[in-house]
Amino acid sequence: MATQNGNKDLDINQGGDATKKTYHKQATGLAAKTAERHSAENDLKLYGSCFCPFVHRVWISLEHKKLEYEYVEVDVYRKPKLLLDINPRGLVPALRHGDWGCYESTVLMEYLEDLHEGKPLLPSDPKLRARSRLWSDHINRHIIPLFYHYLQAQTLDNQTKYAGELTEQIAKLVSAADTTGPLFLGKDFTFVDVQMAPWVIRLEKVLKPYRGWPDPEPGSRWERWVRAIEANEAVKVTTSGDELYLDSYERYAENRPNTSLVQAAVNGGKGLP
Amino acid sequence: MATQNGNKDLDINQGGDATKKTYHKQATGLAAKTAERHSAENDLKLYGSCFCPFVHRVWISLEHKKLEYEYVEVDVYRKPKLLLDINPRGLVPALRHGDWGCYESTVLMEYLEDLHEGKPLLPSDPKLRARSRLWSDHINRHIIPLFYHYLQAQTLDNQTKYAGELTEQIAKLVSAADTTGPLFLGKDFTFVDVQMAPWVIRLEKVLKPYRGWPDPEPGSRWERWVRAIEANEAVKVTTSGDELYLDSYERYAENRPNTSLVQAAVNGGKGLP
Repeated sequence: MATQNGNKDLDINQGGDATKKTYHKQATGLAAKTAERHSAENDLKLYGSCFCPFVHRVWISLEHKKLEYEYVEVDVYRKPKLLLDINPRGLVPALRHGDWGCYESTVLMEYLEDLHEGKPLLPSDPKLRARSRLWSDHINRHIIPLFYHYLQAQTLDNQTKYAGELTEQIAKLVSAADTTGPLFLGKDFTFVDVQMAPWVIRLEKVLKPYRGWPDPEPGSRWERWVRAIEANEAVKVTTSGDELYLDSYERYAENRPNTSLVQAAVNGGKGLP
Repeated sequence: MATQNGNKDLDINQGGDATKKTYHKQATGLAAKTAERHSAENDLKLYGSCFCPFVHRVWISLEHKKLEYEYVEVDVYRKPKLLLDINPRGLVPALRHGDWGCYESTVLMEYLEDLHEGKPLLPSDPKLRARSRLWSDHINRHIIPLFYHYLQAQTLDNQTKYAGELTEQIAKLVSAADTTGPLFLGKDFTFVDVQMAPWVIRLEKVLKPYRGWPDPEPGSRWERWVRAIEANEAVKVTTSGDELYLDSYERYAENRPNTSLVQAAVNGGKGLP
């Protein structure tokens, strides 16, 4: 984390107040070990920020496939030229592969599939691929914006409203899952599981402490799915300690100015950047 | 079109006023001939509405690939059970293939790719596939919402604002295209061309008459792209006569109540349904 012994070292979201928590700049726990294992120069580079759920998706995919790659931690609010070269909007995650680069988590997950190296996340059946993409789109368009709306809501009325809507959209997703499970398409860990995993982690580690998000109902299909995602090896080795998430999302939970582009878009009633 | 000799026959968006235009219920021009050629029962069915740009994408893809399919015209504001069976939200486009069905235009375009029948729209190179998906995402998230914001804007201030933003987002897309062209990736008609084609048609046939959208600057990269899309055979045979678009979008241009889910989402500052 940035040293906090003077205002010039504070992040802009702290608004000059050193008692406010800000986002972590380095992974902790198992994710720190994984970052270290992948710190050597490699042709395939993931530019990421340790707290970012969109980065988390691509990182899980790389670990699932057991590809060789380099993890490059980026302080996204002080965007380095290295990142801006491949992504003029400066957003993470970004992948560089040789002299080529791209961004957007879902696009990058499809790119890794198209390399046909390591374990696939999309099944080979066109109908199951379509089902995976349809429900990934549901997560991106209907679940994620509500996660932020709920976390950023400052009045009880709004919190209640968004909690209800988020619960409803998650229920739709769960009702589209294989009935036996435990994962979305059945016993294998696939595309939709990766798309949802960072939010499953953050429901537990962010929405629960800040908003009282409830544990999954014991014995429910949702609980089986959550436990299977949490137990997945690629998810575990890319997840940091609890404090990293608690600190990094305080600025969202207080809806402080200058938190992020995502926060500003949600506040402004716009689509995610 | 619905007969208009009595209020009970009017569409809800007409608000009881028979002088108001409403959406067409049957393709005209070359698209009518294509619909007729594909009216026979087939295992692969496209449920569509003739004026809908999202349907247009899937229809263009089917024609590009020269697949065997059945086109089923649907009055989407009087949703038939046939459609609700495969898409509980009742949105078009929807595809039924045997006893399986799916929806969402981009997901359906990927599904048709995955069938590996007919001419592909996605190139085989993973980097070009990623580039295609990245810019398709840009169209879906940054261009389409602005098209509707602009068309529905009722004050000059808002129209000016959205015209500027739409122009800017289209310029970003054009600057990401192959510099020679004429199409997005070069000489071949591919995924991004199909994603953008219905909007190119509607910039000319809807935004131009209702909002004075300008013709592309002569000799510009944008003009070359527009002309190449307009000249594409699959685009031409799925496009109706001008009047169909003029009539069908009047309700958006006047931002009348009960126009559509898309209209309501845009008015409410939400993502597209």
